[in-house]
Amino acid sequence: MALRGRELRTTLAEDGTLTLSLEDVTVAAPGPDEIVVRVEAAPINPADLGLLLGPADVRTMESSGTGDRPVATFRLPREMLGGLRARTGQSLAVGNEGAGIVVAAGENAKALEGRRVAMVGGAMFADYRVLNAREALPLPDGATSAQGAAMFVNPLTALGFIETMRTEGHTAIVHTAAASNLGQMLQKLCLADGIPLVNIVRSDAQAEILRKIGATHVIDSRAEDFRKRLADAVAETGATLAFDAIGGGDIGSTILQAMEQAANRNATEYSRYGSNVFKQLYIYGALDPSPSTLNRMAFGFQWGVSGWLLFNFLRRAGAEANARMRRRISDELTTTFASTYTATIGLAEALRPEVLKAYERKATGEKYLIDPTRN
Amino acid sequence: MALRGRELRTTLAEDGTLTLSLEDVTVAAPGPDEIVVRVEAAPINPADLGLLLGPADVRTMESSGTGDRPVATFRLPREMLGGLRARTGQSLAVGNEGAGIVVAAGENAKALEGRRVAMVGGAMFADYRVLNAREALPLPDGATSAQGAAMFVNPLTALGFIETMRTEGHTAIVHTAAASNLGQMLQKLCLADGIPLVNIVRSDAQAEILRKIGATHVIDSRAEDFRKRLADAVAETGATLAFDAIGGGDIGSTILQAMEQAANRNATEYSRYGSNVFKQLYIYGALDPSPSTLNRMAFGFQWGVSGWLLFNFLRRAGAEANARMRRRISDELTTTFASTYTATIGLAEALRPEVLKAYERKATGEKYLIDPTRN
Repeated sequence: MALRGRELRTTLAEDGTLTLSLEDVTVAAPGPDEIVVRVEAAPINPADLGLLLGPADVRTMESSGTGDRPVATFRLPREMLGGLRARTGQSLAVGNEGAGIVVAAGENAKALEGRRVAMVGGAMFADYRVLNAREALPLPDGATSAQGAAMFVNPLTALGFIETMRTEGHTAIVHTAAASNLGQMLQKLCLADGIPLVNIVRSDAQAEILRKIGATHVIDSRAEDFRKRLADAVAETGATLAFDAIGGGDIGSTILQAMEQAANRNATEYSRYGSNVFKQLYIYGALDPSPSTLNRMAFGFQWGVSGWLLFNFLRRAGAEANARMRRRISDELTTTFASTYTATIGLAEALRPEVLKAYERKATGEKYLIDPTRN
Repeated sequence: MALRGRELRTTLAEDGTLTLSLEDVTVAAPGPDEIVVRVEAAPINPADLGLLLGPADVRTMESSGTGDRPVATFRLPREMLGGLRARTGQSLAVGNEGAGIVVAAGENAKALEGRRVAMVGGAMFADYRVLNAREALPLPDGATSAQGAAMFVNPLTALGFIETMRTEGHTAIVHTAAASNLGQMLQKLCLADGIPLVNIVRSDAQAEILRKIGATHVIDSRAEDFRKRLADAVAETGATLAFDAIGGGDIGSTILQAMEQAANRNATEYSRYGSNVFKQLYIYGALDPSPSTLNRMAFGFQWGVSGWLLFNFLRRAGAEANARMRRRISDELTTTFASTYTATIGLAEALRPEVLKAYERKATGEKYLIDPTRN
C-alpha cells in the first residue's frame, strides 16, 4: 500500500513565470537504510524563501487553483533570468529542515519506527519525506515536532559563528538583525561561553527581546548616535568579527569602520594604510538584497568581507566539531535552542496571498512554521 | 663635517590644513651597520600619494614659499579629519623606495661605499637617506639609479600576486588598471610562467601597451559588450582570482559576477546559494576612492573580498619566498621589471602646482620619478 502525499513545489518557466503549487506524489517505499517520516513541522527560513520565490516581487502574485490545491504565480523580469537558468523548467521541492514521526522504516532502521526525528536536507514542505536513517536525529523524549523542527539550520549557524570566531582568532562578535531566533540563540550561547556580543537591532521591541535574555550590548541602528555607540561597544568588547544577515546597504561597512575607529583610539603612530588590526565581516543572509556598499577609505587595507554559508562551514569544520555541535543542540534543545513562531500554517495555507505576504516580509523575530497535518 | 640635505615633508594641522614643504635636516652620521645614501631617483607611487596628500582635493591647493623652498597647502574638510587624527601635527617624510649612491658607511658596511643601491622603507623624497646596510640591495653592475629606483614595490607586488595565486590554489588572474608599470610586469611574469592573465584597461592606448608585450586577453571596460567579453575570457582562462587597483565603483563586483557566470555555464544543477566555485577579489589600490559596490545577488555566497597590502603579504610570505622574489628582481631588473617614467622632476619641482596636479592624476601608465640631484 503505497503512501501518497503532497509536496510544495516551485517552478520557473522559460518565460519568467514562477509557479508555486502542491503536487501529489507517491511516496517511495524505504530502502533497507531508509525511513519514511510524516512531516509535522518545518520552519520557513530565509534560505527557503530564496528557493521558493527567487527574486520574485510578491506584488506580481496571482492566485488560482482550488482551496485544497492552490496555485500562486509571479512574473520575473527577463533581465533576472540569466542567473536562474540552471533552475528553469525544473519542479523543485522546498524546505531545508523539519521534524516528524517515522511511519515506515527499512530493515536496518526498524529501531526508529514510531520515533519523532529531526531532519535536514530539503523537500520538507511535504506530507512525507524519505531519507537515510543516518540523516535523522531522534528528538529527546517528550520533545514535540515543533520543538525539533529547527534543530539544524539556526542552532548550527549560531554554533558555527562561534567556531569560526575561535578558528580565526577573534574573541568577540558583532551581529546584525540580532533579535532573530538565530540571534537569540547566539546571545544565549555567548552568555554561556563568556563571549562578548554586540547586537545590532532596528526597533525597541527587538532590543527588549535581547535584553530579556541577558544581552549587555544592544544598539539600535536607527539611533542618532548609532555610529558612536557602535564604536564604543566594539572598543569595549574588542570585536573584530561580524556576522551580517542583512547584506545590502552600508551596515557591514559601518561595522568595519567602527572596528577601525576602535583600533585607532589607541594608535600611537599614523599608518597611511589604516590600522594593523584585521577586521572580518561575514555576510550570511540577504534580508536586504540590494548591493553592499564598502566605504573602504574608512577602514584601511586590513579587512575581509566574505559570504558565509552553513553547509560550506560544516563541510570544512570536520567530524569532531560536527558531532560536538549536534550533541550540544540535542542537550539544549528546549533552552538555548528554543525557537518561537509567529504562526503555524498548513501546506495549502502557505500559498494563500495574505499568508505568503506575511512570511515573505522576513521581519526580524518573526518566523512561520508549516505543519502539513493541519487543514 | 655633517651633511645637510632637504626632506619633503607632509604635515596635517588640527584645523585641517595640509602643508607640503622641504625641510632642511642634518644627516645623522651612520652607525656601525649603517650607510648614508645620496638619493638619485625615487618613484612617486600611488601609495606615496596617499601619505603625501591624504584625501586632500588638489583644487584647494595654494602655493607659497620661494622657488627653492616652495610650500603647498590644501584644506581638508573637517569631517575627514577623524580618521587622520593619528597623523595630526606630525611632520612626515615621504617616499617608499628609491636608489642612489652610498656616500658614507659605518665600519661594518664599508664594502658598500661608492656603490649604487636600491632602498625601501620611507623618507626617500630627500637628498640623503640613512639606513641599515641590510636594507639596501646593491644594483647590478651598470644599472642606473633610475633603473633601480622602483625595484621593490611594483616588482614585489607583481610577484606577490602570483605567490598569492599559488598559495590560495587559483590558476589564473584578472587584473584591473592593467597597463600600469605594475600591470606590464605582471603580464611579462605571467607569460614567462605560463599563467593566464585577463587584463582590464580603459583605453585603446593602454590595450596597445599590453598587446605589444604579448598579452592575449585585453578587455576595454568602456566597450559595450565588456561584461560578455569579460565572462568569456574568465571562462576561457578559469580565473577565480582578481587583483583590483581601482577599488571604487562596481568593477570588482562585475569581475566576481563574470566568474560566477563562467562557473554556471557548465552547471547541471541549480543551487540557490550560487555556484560552488570560490571567487576571491583583492583590492590593492584606491585609484577610485569612492565606495565599492558589491552586487552580491549576482555571485552567490562563495566569495571573498579583501584588502591586499604588500607589506602584510611580505611578512606572511616567509624568508624563502622573500629571498626567491628578490633574486628574480635582481636578475630581471632591466627586462621584466623595467619601469618607464613620464618625467623626471626635482624635489622643489614636486611641489609646483602644475607638476603636482600632473602626477596626482594617477593616469594608468603614467609615473613620475623624483631625482633630488636635479635643480
